[in-house]
Amino acid sequence: MRGVVMHAPGDVRVDDLPEPTIQQPTDAIIRLAAACVCGSDLWPYRGADEVSEPKPMGHEYVGIVEQVGDQVKQIKVGDFVVGSFFASDNTCEICRAGYQTNCVHADFPGPSQAQLMRVPLADGTLVATPGHPDEDLIPSLLAASDVLGTGWFGAVAAEAGPGKTVAVVGDGAVGLLAVLAAKELGAERIIAMSRHADRQALAREFGATDIVAERGEAGIAKVRELTDGLGAHSVVEAVGTQESMMQAIGATRPGGHVGFVGVLHDVAIAGDDIFMTHVHVHGGPAPVRRFLPDLIERIWNRQINPGKVFDLTLPLDQAADAYTAMDQRTAIKVLLQP
Amino acid sequence: MRGVVMHAPGDVRVDDLPEPTIQQPTDAIIRLAAACVCGSDLWPYRGADEVSEPKPMGHEYVGIVEQVGDQVKQIKVGDFVVGSFFASDNTCEICRAGYQTNCVHADFPGPSQAQLMRVPLADGTLVATPGHPDEDLIPSLLAASDVLGTGWFGAVAAEAGPGKTVAVVGDGAVGLLAVLAAKELGAERIIAMSRHADRQALAREFGATDIVAERGEAGIAKVRELTDGLGAHSVVEAVGTQESMMQAIGATRPGGHVGFVGVLHDVAIAGDDIFMTHVHVHGGPAPVRRFLPDLIERIWNRQINPGKVFDLTLPLDQAADAYTAMDQRTAIKVLLQP
Repeated sequence: MRGVVMHAPGDVRVDDLPEPTIQQPTDAIIRLAAACVCGSDLWPYRGADEVSEPKPMGHEYVGIVEQVGDQVKQIKVGDFVVGSFFASDNTCEICRAGYQTNCVHADFPGPSQAQLMRVPLADGTLVATPGHPDEDLIPSLLAASDVLGTGWFGAVAAEAGPGKTVAVVGDGAVGLLAVLAAKELGAERIIAMSRHADRQALAREFGATDIVAERGEAGIAKVRELTDGLGAHSVVEAVGTQESMMQAIGATRPGGHVGFVGVLHDVAIAGDDIFMTHVHVHGGPAPVRRFLPDLIERIWNRQINPGKVFDLTLPLDQAADAYTAMDQRTAIKVLLQP
Repeated sequence: MRGVVMHAPGDVRVDDLPEPTIQQPTDAIIRLAAACVCGSDLWPYRGADEVSEPKPMGHEYVGIVEQVGDQVKQIKVGDFVVGSFFASDNTCEICRAGYQTNCVHADFPGPSQAQLMRVPLADGTLVATPGHPDEDLIPSLLAASDVLGTGWFGAVAAEAGPGKTVAVVGDGAVGLLAVLAAKELGAERIIAMSRHADRQALAREFGATDIVAERGEAGIAKVRELTDGLGAHSVVEAVGTQESMMQAIGATRPGGHVGFVGVLHDVAIAGDDIFMTHVHVHGGPAPVRRFLPDLIERIWNRQINPGKVFDLTLPLDQAADAYTAMDQRTAIKVLLQP
């Protein structure tokens, strides 16, 4: 089968790979209906994460179940399914508390930038849609697999909700979908921090009421200006750098909440940054599985359209162009057709 | 009047000081019924905080109102009152959200290791007891002013409650009272981390179900062993060093909560410590005022006896001995009689 392999930073190719097989009786094999490139794939692409050997890529997926192991009871061959980038049993104490990305049996599905993929712990990891979706729903269901679920977790971790002012640091797909999540969760005011006109427009479409183009201290000052000098109740950090984390903490009012979902790279939080300010800090790899049934329902009912973050669609064989477009920010997010 | 002054690290004296006066129409002057030495007073005493000039000490207090400014409406001369170590208007948006230590008009009462003290924003800061207390209640009411309120906030910030296993790092007065708070809040299991027999005994009296004497990685391993390998749901950090913070984060299960109330000294939290573990982090100077009415009621009804942390009582004039006893850990906490 065809699959995307990163050979070195900047060097992405589509190679012939062996087809995945059932390895554990709890596995499923799914045929991808769509895959995509993640913002986090850009860390190794840009050399910020090491690429020590050729690495098959991808962790976001929707598709049709082609084969299941003997112990898979709920997921059936032929189901259209959405899964998360972590496999989880969804029954352990940590899963039941809503942290499936820390499941005591956590495993990794994929790679998903391919025609077929293996999903461990299929019954815990996958959620079947009510039927096979209309073609136009596929991008949104694919978004639920990671970027929507991650933005949603960021908004939940930041305790976005009715009466709250929510600020979002980062205008990638996750940041934009955190705006959508804040809106769905009932936030009163949503400040998108973005300096790109196209992303500002999508943020507004997703529910942003205010745009702040400034960054760092100037961005913090602007958010305070918009919030009676206090800062936002809830701030979602969707970048993962020291600067963005400090911008998020600084934009939060005393006692407010920072939800951070950008993959952290060399970030350290000084005690002084959170001691005197009473800012709550919570985040990490989103337990997307917690939110999937709800997200699928909202998509199925056409209540939300998170698939709009895919502003470029390419055949799988042009994956190199997809990486280039995201790296150069000419596309927000690229959907790959296997 | 007589008052405690720190002249330099290790050099505490009781000097003749001018009596405090009403400076703002919202001030009150109170005559101390009791004062005490705080664990945080030991930071400058030990030279960890600079003492650039002689500094009158103390921020924990109970006493009788002797004088009020023109704009003080609720607090009356003659009231027996308990206050927090931060003055707050208790009406601003941040106060109403429960973060009075970040009141937009926050100010500092005291110094309180003296015969008389000034309390700014008296109506917001002070809570009058139902009447003048019996003598035996005074230590507990004094504890409410800081160490109980701080331990309580630590337990609340760590989301201690029914069904939860709570671990407490630190066996000073705040840590011991975090044990008491966790018990009152309904925690199922309470692990006190202490290596001192007398403090272990008091922790058990306050509600600890388990004692862990190990520290650092060994302490973390022991807490995990007691919790099916997962870690505690809620961990209170009541020390304020890098080691104790890492011990607290490490002892928390994925998705669990760390409530930190030790005054942080050169602490930095690496992103990796909280990203993959999904640990919630929240703390800072306790908004004691949020809890005071409830704490006073529990004390008044003799439901709790937090005053037990005072294991030495000295006249104000022997304040130097009080500091020595706490520094050398021969006393948990010393009550000073003005």
